[in-house]
This record gives sequence, C-alpha cells and structure tokens, in this order.
Amino acid sequence: MHSRTVFFVSDGTGITAETFGNAILAQFELVPRRVRLPFVDTVDKAHQAVRQINHTAELEGKKPIVFTTLVNMEVLKVIQDGCKGMLLDMFGTFVHPLEKELGIKSHHRVGRFSDVSRSKEYTDRIEAINFSLAHDDGQSHRDLAGADVILVGVSRSGKTPTSLYLAMQHGLKAANYPLIPEDFDRRQLPPALMEFRKKIFGLTISPERLSEIRSERRPDSRYASLENCRHEVAEAEAMMRRAGIRWLSTTTKSIEEIATTILQELQPDRLVY
Amino acid sequence: MHSRTVFFVSDGTGITAETFGNAILAQFELVPRRVRLPFVDTVDKAHQAVRQINHTAELEGKKPIVFTTLVNMEVLKVIQDGCKGMLLDMFGTFVHPLEKELGIKSHHRVGRFSDVSRSKEYTDRIEAINFSLAHDDGQSHRDLAGADVILVGVSRSGKTPTSLYLAMQHGLKAANYPLIPEDFDRRQLPPALMEFRKKIFGLTISPERLSEIRSERRPDSRYASLENCRHEVAEAEAMMRRAGIRWLSTTTKSIEEIATTILQELQPDRLVY
Repeated sequence: MHSRTVFFVSDGTGITAETFGNAILAQFELVPRRVRLPFVDTVDKAHQAVRQINHTAELEGKKPIVFTTLVNMEVLKVIQDGCKGMLLDMFGTFVHPLEKELGIKSHHRVGRFSDVSRSKEYTDRIEAINFSLAHDDGQSHRDLAGADVILVGVSRSGKTPTSLYLAMQHGLKAANYPLIPEDFDRRQLPPALMEFRKKIFGLTISPERLSEIRSERRPDSRYASLENCRHEVAEAEAMMRRAGIRWLSTTTKSIEEIATTILQELQPDRLVY
Repeated sequence: MHSRTVFFVSDGTGITAETFGNAILAQFELVPRRVRLPFVDTVDKAHQAVRQINHTAELEGKKPIVFTTLVNMEVLKVIQDGCKGMLLDMFGTFVHPLEKELGIKSHHRVGRFSDVSRSKEYTDRIEAINFSLAHDDGQSHRDLAGADVILVGVSRSGKTPTSLYLAMQHGLKAANYPLIPEDFDRRQLPPALMEFRKKIFGLTISPERLSEIRSERRPDSRYASLENCRHEVAEAEAMMRRAGIRWLSTTTKSIEEIATTILQELQPDRLVY
C-alpha cells in the first residue's frame, strides 16, 4: 500500500516538477503513489486539477503532496486557493527572492519546450543524437573529427547508453568504438582513433559484472565466460594505460555518473559550461 | 558579456540542481555563465567550492547565484557559513516542511545513482534503451509483443529521438516503424503491426518542415522535395485516420512534449505512474 499520493502539476511537460519532486522524495522512506498532471495551462484545467487533488485528499484522509512548477499566476492562484494538499511551489519559492537579487522581473512565461524546438540548441541536440546513433559501436569512421567525445571499451562495458545519454542530455556528439581482440594483438588503440586521442575516454568494468551482463545475451558462450572477460578487461585496461587516455570503471556507476565524470575530465569545447 | 555567474553545487551528479536551476533561470532575461560543481561530498570539497564562489564574487563585484541540492548537512553548513553568493537551497527549503507533514525524518542520504545502478529500475531502463535501439526504424520484428509503445510515421518525422527519449527517461521499450510507399499502396498499416494496434502511436509533421529536414540530408532529391513530402504526409495521415490510431504533429514540439503526450494517451502498463 502506498502511504501518500504525490501530484506533479506543471503548465509544461512536468519534467522539472518530477525531477525536483522525486529528488526530494528520495530523502524519505516512503512508497508514494505518483500522479502526473502536465499541461495545466488554463484556469479550467487548474480547477480540474484541484478537484482531482481534493478528491484524493478526502478518499485517503491525508493531505496529498503537490509539487508545482506553475509560472502562470492565474493558474497557480486557483491551485493555491482551492487545493487541500500540501503545496510545494518551486517557482514561487525561488523566483521572488531572485527578482530582488537580480533587480529584474521574471516574465512568468511557461517553459514550453516548443519555444526551443526550432532553436539552435535543440536542433544541435537532435543532430547529436543522430550522430551518436550513426557512430555507435564503431559503425562509421566518417567524420570522427566532428565528434566531441569518443568512448572506447570492450563489448558491453556501457558505451552505447552513455553515448546516447551524452547526446540527449548534453547535446554532445559521442561516438563509441569497441576494443576487440585484433586491437589487443596489435597492442594499440584502433588506428582510426589515433589522431583523436584528446577526446577519447575509456570505459572499463569488472570481469565478474561483465560476464553476468554478457551471459544474459549469450549464455554459456566463450564470449560471456569469466575467463574470457578477465582476459579482455586486462588487455583493454593495459592498452588504455599505455595509450595514456583517461578512463573509469562503470561497474557500480549509472550512466548519469559516468557522463558527469566524462564531462569533468574532457571539458569538451562545445559544452557551454 | 554574461551578467551573472551561476553555480550548481551538488553532492551527486548535479543533474537535479541543474534542471531546477535552469528552469528558474529561464524565467529571467539573463545570460548567465554557468559553473557545474558536482560530487561535492566532503567538507574539503565544500571549502574548495566556497573559495571558487567567493573568488568569482570578488572578481565580478556581484553575488553569484548558487543552486544547491546538498543533503549532507556538514557539507551544506560549510557552504551556508562561508559562501558570499545568493544561496538557493532546494533540499533545505522543502525537506523540512515535508518532514513535518509526513511525520518522519529524512535520511539525508546523497541521491547517488550508484545505489540504483544495480536496481531493477535501472537495469530495466538500460534494457529499454537496448530494445529501442534494436527496434529502430523497423529493423526487427522480433519481440514486438514486448514493446510498450510502437511509433509509426514517415521517414524523419521524429520517431527515433522520441523512442530513445521514452527509453532513457521513462524506461519504456519503444519500437519505431517507418511508413513507406508500399504501405501507402496497400492503404494499410505494416502487416507486422496489425496485432499491436493498442500500443501504436503515430507521428506526423508539416510537409514544409519535413522537406527542410530531409533537404539537410539529401539536398535536391525527390525524397526531400516538397511535392513528395506533401504526398507522403497526406497518405500517412489518411492511413492513421483509417486505422483509428492516435497521433500528433511534431512540427513545433520537442521530444519532451511529444513523449509526455504519448504517455498521457497510451498510459502504458509498465509505467508506474
């Protein structure tokens, strides 16, 4: 049984309300029921949201928690006046003190992504996603010069999800390149990459975890065997050390943590900050 | 010239601090310089952050804006006591009132993604990314029954980035399938999809915008010509209407907005909320 209902109310997609609310809820031992109310951008829809929240309050006999990122003051007022939940209003709380400090007024414009959907930043991001897809798993050597980051590592060390995350979240063109037995025999990074050393970042992983992951795909194969994984990982790590490239172990890291570390280490030019 | 420096200080990746801070900054006409300070998880690193913030304050003669999501109280205290910036403390502001309402204490544990990096939710998300990649652009008919969502639409209508976003952000297995001239001749959805009608969602786009996008890839081709785009879009829309599937136009929408709308319409079972 959930112990509380939590609403995320936004005039846009609600992604900020959710990120913000979930981060705060993660501080509590709580199994909430979550309800997303995006696109609440008219007074009518606000009244509807209030009805839904208050209905839940009555049914459960407990105040629902309501995270909002509403910027339309009329809409927000309907929620403030009518809602029987506990209102945690992210914009109201921080925008007013900021107005004072900055000495300018906020424009209360809904953070519609549509405004940006034809902006340079947005089209760059879509282009980065397409680039990363086209350069997944060493598929293409073309235009590696255009990459912001080139990830290398053995098969299933986390390169693909990390590349796509870097593209989607940070708009970086992230190619990725597998390290394979031929490279180990030659004891050198793949020749196509040599000239781009500065933007190469290596991913490694513990052989035990690698064997687990590979076994899900190809059980009982030599590819997934612990012995082979130990060999590949040792060879790959030795090669990355010799080549003097930066690398990290993904074993206990999420793609978000891996990506944040890569950004700190490589400081790609294209990233504005 | 930037008018203000903004710091994002976090004991984790800082993604929440950034999402939260950027959403608030979007309310102001302001060109800030942004500085990310992730992984500030010791008192030492907190002192370092304070030095960096105060150095900026002196240099610029203006208070830097400091968004924090620090949960470690010792670390937060160093910032609170020493920092000459304007502190906007998301956790402190909302966690304490919530403790009262819920009648439980928060555990002040850093929202490390590592905690979740081996959780079911996280591995499901990685699996969803792999699924969406393997089922991009109708590459595979295998296991379409396992998909949570199947996107259809003409080439370059936004299917691929939307699928990857649904997988990465929401952990949904999103396949996508192009509508091609053969389908238009047959006047029916691709046969492989017929049995999955309930989870199909269509994307369309204005012929003018489509022609622009296609022209970037293949200038002066029949594929990109406005005439051909008009024909394909009209056929695709007619087919979606006939098939009775839900669809939307992506012309002025971002992938975040498209994804939010799809979730609202399809309400996939696997999405917890």
